[in-house]
Amino acid sequence: MHVDGTHYRTVWLEGSAVRMINQPLLPHRFEIVDLPDHRATAVSIKTMVVRGAGAIGATAGYAMAQAALEAPDDGFHAFIAEAAETVRATRPTAQNLFYAVNRVLSAIEAQGSNQQRAREAAVAEATDIAADDAACCEAIGRHGAPLLKDGARISTHCNAGWLAFVDWGSALSPIYVAARQGRKPFVFVDETRPRSQGSRLTAWELGQEGVDHAVIADNATGHFMRTGQIDMVIVGSDRIAANGDVANKIGTYSSAVVAAANGIPFYVAAPTTTIDPSCPSGSDIPIEERSGDEVCFAWGWSDEGRFVRVRTAASGSPARNPAFDVTPADLVAGIITERGVVEASVAGISSVARD
Amino acid sequence: MHVDGTHYRTVWLEGSAVRMINQPLLPHRFEIVDLPDHRATAVSIKTMVVRGAGAIGATAGYAMAQAALEAPDDGFHAFIAEAAETVRATRPTAQNLFYAVNRVLSAIEAQGSNQQRAREAAVAEATDIAADDAACCEAIGRHGAPLLKDGARISTHCNAGWLAFVDWGSALSPIYVAARQGRKPFVFVDETRPRSQGSRLTAWELGQEGVDHAVIADNATGHFMRTGQIDMVIVGSDRIAANGDVANKIGTYSSAVVAAANGIPFYVAAPTTTIDPSCPSGSDIPIEERSGDEVCFAWGWSDEGRFVRVRTAASGSPARNPAFDVTPADLVAGIITERGVVEASVAGISSVARD
Repeated sequence: MHVDGTHYRTVWLEGSAVRMINQPLLPHRFEIVDLPDHRATAVSIKTMVVRGAGAIGATAGYAMAQAALEAPDDGFHAFIAEAAETVRATRPTAQNLFYAVNRVLSAIEAQGSNQQRAREAAVAEATDIAADDAACCEAIGRHGAPLLKDGARISTHCNAGWLAFVDWGSALSPIYVAARQGRKPFVFVDETRPRSQGSRLTAWELGQEGVDHAVIADNATGHFMRTGQIDMVIVGSDRIAANGDVANKIGTYSSAVVAAANGIPFYVAAPTTTIDPSCPSGSDIPIEERSGDEVCFAWGWSDEGRFVRVRTAASGSPARNPAFDVTPADLVAGIITERGVVEASVAGISSVARD
Repeated sequence: MHVDGTHYRTVWLEGSAVRMINQPLLPHRFEIVDLPDHRATAVSIKTMVVRGAGAIGATAGYAMAQAALEAPDDGFHAFIAEAAETVRATRPTAQNLFYAVNRVLSAIEAQGSNQQRAREAAVAEATDIAADDAACCEAIGRHGAPLLKDGARISTHCNAGWLAFVDWGSALSPIYVAARQGRKPFVFVDETRPRSQGSRLTAWELGQEGVDHAVIADNATGHFMRTGQIDMVIVGSDRIAANGDVANKIGTYSSAVVAAANGIPFYVAAPTTTIDPSCPSGSDIPIEERSGDEVCFAWGWSDEGRFVRVRTAASGSPARNPAFDVTPADLVAGIITERGVVEASVAGISSVARD
């Protein structure tokens, strides 16, 4: 997607260096970070310079390619095995990260003792992982775009845009495709407290792509639905259960309930890698509870240009902060995947789930 | 209610001075403001040092009492008429303000040309207005408290506590009464973006009264409802239509819809002065749209103790900011008034509405 008119991916390999958009500085500063070796790249994952399942996976793949380029002839495989452990330890719950590390390891192993070919295979595989992610998201956009009528007014929650992947994104991809077809979508961007990924990232992405939008308080979504100003909802997902229940950023469930009450179709867009066939239903998905500080403080840029936190709640106010919620399948109009749009049901999910 | 164990009202008269809690400094600093004359008191209304229908009404009454005390013998009534205009101009949409000004003016006029008795009558009437507000809210608490089971877990939105009135509050009054009866309520406090009255004011009030609570992101309310952790909802109201539709802070509607979907009773607590019999239904209530800056920024106290704003959204991101929404009567389990709990219907409303 575009930044100031130039095409960017969230992360890419240049020679032996990984380069990526420094996401914590967005939307206030656009900066590219250079990561000279696999250790620096691993730190960037751990410190969340990059975030989002697809983008983390691609970064992990590139980190392993860097490790292969750095590995000495003497002790080549031991070096790579150690690098794999370093990368895996950065975000121990990120499924895509493990998948990417294993893909590059397999490509290296397939070359046996030919280290030069192993290095080339590692770079090629990492490049493929990133390309696969971008192609998958672009396919989500192609399948989803026909669901948008001309001038569709879409509500979205959190950031399921290209910044969370390598390119295109999941929930925002059908919107980008429709916009490029000249069909003028308009997006209501939920702020998405407590971490404000909507106002920080989604609004910035849409602005850079020239898609009309307005940031709204999470509280206002229902009002715009009830007064007929929203035609459909598209959100991303962190995990989809085998029965079509969807885990996503906190607040997604309320949006789905209010959409249903107003006859507004509620879609989930996600690559099929998000499906967890081992998870029978949403009640089997554990809900991470994060620090209450995220609720009691807000973060942003002061008028003097400094990134600061401000306390809103009284010092000592207790807080609860579940990071995700579960939306039951019966509230979901369809799941937009790279393999097509399917029903949120056992039958629909199993028709597109990977082995 | 209590602050650091001492009983306070939001506003009171001491001699010829009005004293009030400086609400914009809460919860980070508790400070009493002294307002020596009616002009200073009018400024305090205009600059929102005091907010909330009941508290504004009481303050306006006290400002008129101050005006009567200040008025010279020569030109007594002209001085008071000018003061009434000054006070009325501070918040031209605050119904309670006009009501209070008129009550004190009538009390003054009833004394004819006896200026000393007119001054005494003005002070007595203003004192009564504040006492009426406190008694009304306490009655809301008495009528509402039996709706709470022991250990009830209650969701509330925005601040409809004693800080918005003279004492007790509306939505929080039944909770305070139940707490004093030893019935251990627990309150989930919606942050209430964009102005965060929940995390700033409601959480502080509850903490000072020793009521167990947790601040949550507005996005989290639905999750706690769906997972069976909320027994009931009580919110306040800015205006109630003749058919029982309720206008209240943005986000109230979504809370009501999700409560209904989960079989959770949703109550509105408000003095009968909130009922607007001239307004047939919620669709006749205009929805104020405020500056988008409230959505693109957050306000609070920095680690260095300064009150600052921080920008969260990208510079130039458009925003929409409706301040209120309308909850249809059929989502409301009952309206808790000082005259009892009534159905949100034409019949219920007309049984308690004032002439």
